[in-house]
Amino acid sequence: MYFHALIPFKPKNPKTRLSAVLSQEEREEFARVMLCDVINAVNRTGCTATLLTTSKYECHEALVAVRKEGLNEAINWALPQFHCPAMIIMSDLPLVTAGALQKVLSTDKDMAIVPGLGGGTNVIFVKKPEKFHAEYYGFSFRRHLEIAKEAGLSVEIVDSMRLSTDVDEPSDLVELMIHGRGLAREWLYGHGFELNVENGRLKVMRNGETIV
Amino acid sequence: MYFHALIPFKPKNPKTRLSAVLSQEEREEFARVMLCDVINAVNRTGCTATLLTTSKYECHEALVAVRKEGLNEAINWALPQFHCPAMIIMSDLPLVTAGALQKVLSTDKDMAIVPGLGGGTNVIFVKKPEKFHAEYYGFSFRRHLEIAKEAGLSVEIVDSMRLSTDVDEPSDLVELMIHGRGLAREWLYGHGFELNVENGRLKVMRNGETIV
Repeated sequence: MYFHALIPFKPKNPKTRLSAVLSQEEREEFARVMLCDVINAVNRTGCTATLLTTSKYECHEALVAVRKEGLNEAINWALPQFHCPAMIIMSDLPLVTAGALQKVLSTDKDMAIVPGLGGGTNVIFVKKPEKFHAEYYGFSFRRHLEIAKEAGLSVEIVDSMRLSTDVDEPSDLVELMIHGRGLAREWLYGHGFELNVENGRLKVMRNGETIV
Repeated sequence: MYFHALIPFKPKNPKTRLSAVLSQEEREEFARVMLCDVINAVNRTGCTATLLTTSKYECHEALVAVRKEGLNEAINWALPQFHCPAMIIMSDLPLVTAGALQKVLSTDKDMAIVPGLGGGTNVIFVKKPEKFHAEYYGFSFRRHLEIAKEAGLSVEIVDSMRLSTDVDEPSDLVELMIHGRGLAREWLYGHGFELNVENGRLKVMRNGETIV
């Protein structure tokens, strides 16, 4: 089956909730390596990808569309243009594997959705993208289920820790350091991050200082 | 295939990291309803269960063995006594479903393991329990992989948000309130907990006050 992935991406000053542990330059680099992990997994499923970026961005592994409007507006501009099933996947899912994405793509429902921890939406796959629209932010997981219902689309909720774990906060780095298999994990280890057990609990350290 | 589940359980003063939001009595009740959700899912897979409890406890849906020693000692006392495949599952996994457990039980490896968020181990399934021993606490997920390797056991790591999400901290309640399907979720809603979107982010409230 041929299909296409949309990956929203913010190249400038991304991941501000990581500001306490990463400088702006580091956050921009870290966001890029997380994006690479996502694109690589997407491409390994045989799927092509388009980045929806908020500013100019060079990428050899995906098409790039610069869109100045907000996240929802950009996605909802793109969706009706598809003539094939479409996946919307966030760029901050560095635990992603092609195998985890296959679970999403092999749904026999009209669409599949993977919630993010905390009520967000990490992956949406919809066979008829023109019938769906996105409403991210807040409790978007519930909102997306409602939108699907209103549109008469059947939905599979896919159970995947790898796809539910988005990296927003310093505490999310633990999962990436344990379970990551790609560039983002490597980037952290290459930048002084390490895991340590302290008083029976697992901690993230950087250059000897406890972060989480 | 016939197999048996071991569920460690602490009836008295459990879940102390929830003390800020639940009284001791409430924590004991909440721990019991979470345990019920786990036992129900286990039983729906066709599996029988034994609780390893730290003190006397009445339960009609499972066998009960009171063990005064520590968690690891209790489990490692029980494991070699099995003459069938065994699952060790934590009692604080109220997102569990029989379907998620089936993914674990259907492994074609010698054992399957589900990590907990933060480096712990939430579920272990081992076909020859006498070849394995448990070492919980700290970075137990890594330790359990090492133990399997030393014992020459092949391992599948099962990717499941439902089974990776253990409820320890107030922030974990969000996932239960969104994705729970059993008694524990009902218990929270029956005790004044609710979800609310505040400034675009999902919050847990209790009786009008923001908890997380």
